[in-house]
Amino acid sequence: MGNNTEVYWHEHMVSRAEREVLNGHKGCVIWFTGLSASGKSTIANTLDHKLSQNRVHCAVLDGDNVRHSLNAGTQMLRENHGNDFAERFGLGFSAIDREENIRRIGAVANLFSQAGMIAITAFISPYRIDRDRVRNTLLPGEFIEIFVDTPISVCEARDPKGLYKKARAGELKGFTGIDDPYEPPVSPEMVLFGGEKTPDVLANEVISFLKHNAIIEK
Amino acid sequence: MGNNTEVYWHEHMVSRAEREVLNGHKGCVIWFTGLSASGKSTIANTLDHKLSQNRVHCAVLDGDNVRHSLNAGTQMLRENHGNDFAERFGLGFSAIDREENIRRIGAVANLFSQAGMIAITAFISPYRIDRDRVRNTLLPGEFIEIFVDTPISVCEARDPKGLYKKARAGELKGFTGIDDPYEPPVSPEMVLFGGEKTPDVLANEVISFLKHNAIIEK
Repeated sequence: MGNNTEVYWHEHMVSRAEREVLNGHKGCVIWFTGLSASGKSTIANTLDHKLSQNRVHCAVLDGDNVRHSLNAGTQMLRENHGNDFAERFGLGFSAIDREENIRRIGAVANLFSQAGMIAITAFISPYRIDRDRVRNTLLPGEFIEIFVDTPISVCEARDPKGLYKKARAGELKGFTGIDDPYEPPVSPEMVLFGGEKTPDVLANEVISFLKHNAIIEK
Repeated sequence: MGNNTEVYWHEHMVSRAEREVLNGHKGCVIWFTGLSASGKSTIANTLDHKLSQNRVHCAVLDGDNVRHSLNAGTQMLRENHGNDFAERFGLGFSAIDREENIRRIGAVANLFSQAGMIAITAFISPYRIDRDRVRNTLLPGEFIEIFVDTPISVCEARDPKGLYKKARAGELKGFTGIDDPYEPPVSPEMVLFGGEKTPDVLANEVISFLKHNAIIEK
């Protein structure tokens, strides 16, 4: 809707390839997955920092900027949109709601990559099928799944927000790794050992991968 | 979740200001609103084309890239996610579904602007309250509401997809301007006369506005 004629429209569309030439790098989705406190967000932000310094255009999607807006819960929606709306559209933590949470994040990451950006996502995303569905919305090579393979003992020892403690005490239900499964990727593009190396070293490993695969320049 | 320590996290976060310095322009949301066939998408794509040529980083959100993924309808979700999921999360055209449609688009546009990009949206977005809710998620100056004020007679004469014809025949219900209201903005940042000037001229008017308001360089 809104375009005068199809010809006119296509004449002025900026193709993804043109955007990538302007940016000097390709667009893609870097999808971190792993347990809570495995280091996903820290590595994602370190990577973003290093790439941005190098004039690579990135955007990080994580719980901080997604759960408060795009994927807001019932409570958050109630104030601005009223009860009926909040009940209908608020996302909770049921299986189906988690599926929708990941689906939307995947759709947004895809939009960023279409805009020629490197979208970096940092969500536990414990279920294989949810991650594979996102992969299937992208072309081969555009979805870079990175398993942050940090032993649960290390994650639990870190426990920056006391979530493992609460889950062990039964105060948090359905917590990944405790009473809900984490399904590791079968053939991820990369595995990072988050219990053995620093975020700085791990972010550099990702950058080497991006260079090797001609997503960014050497 | 996932960050080792708060200190480490903050150390490596790329601020929006840093992104804007790297990009050489500010991030914002340019929100086109107007009747179907008023010219929103054509102007949006022309603007995107001109800005991209000038190394300004943009992303266009419109029906083409949003209704098929982020805001997919029931039918589209059914294939990949099954019936229950599709019924729960598919977006239709009811009042509440349209509200959610605009809410999500606003949230994504906001994410793009946070990443230092110029997000350009082209949706009828007929209701004032929906647009104002998006405005309220952004800081003053970051939401640039542009009313594409094309007379309905002109839109109806264009009717590229035959939607007005169907609406007049009663085959399409709730069509904006025919049997559903369009609420023009009370004080939009810009008004473009889509029935009088070419998309090229109108896109240039927007660029002048962006320069005048120091969002892009002169």
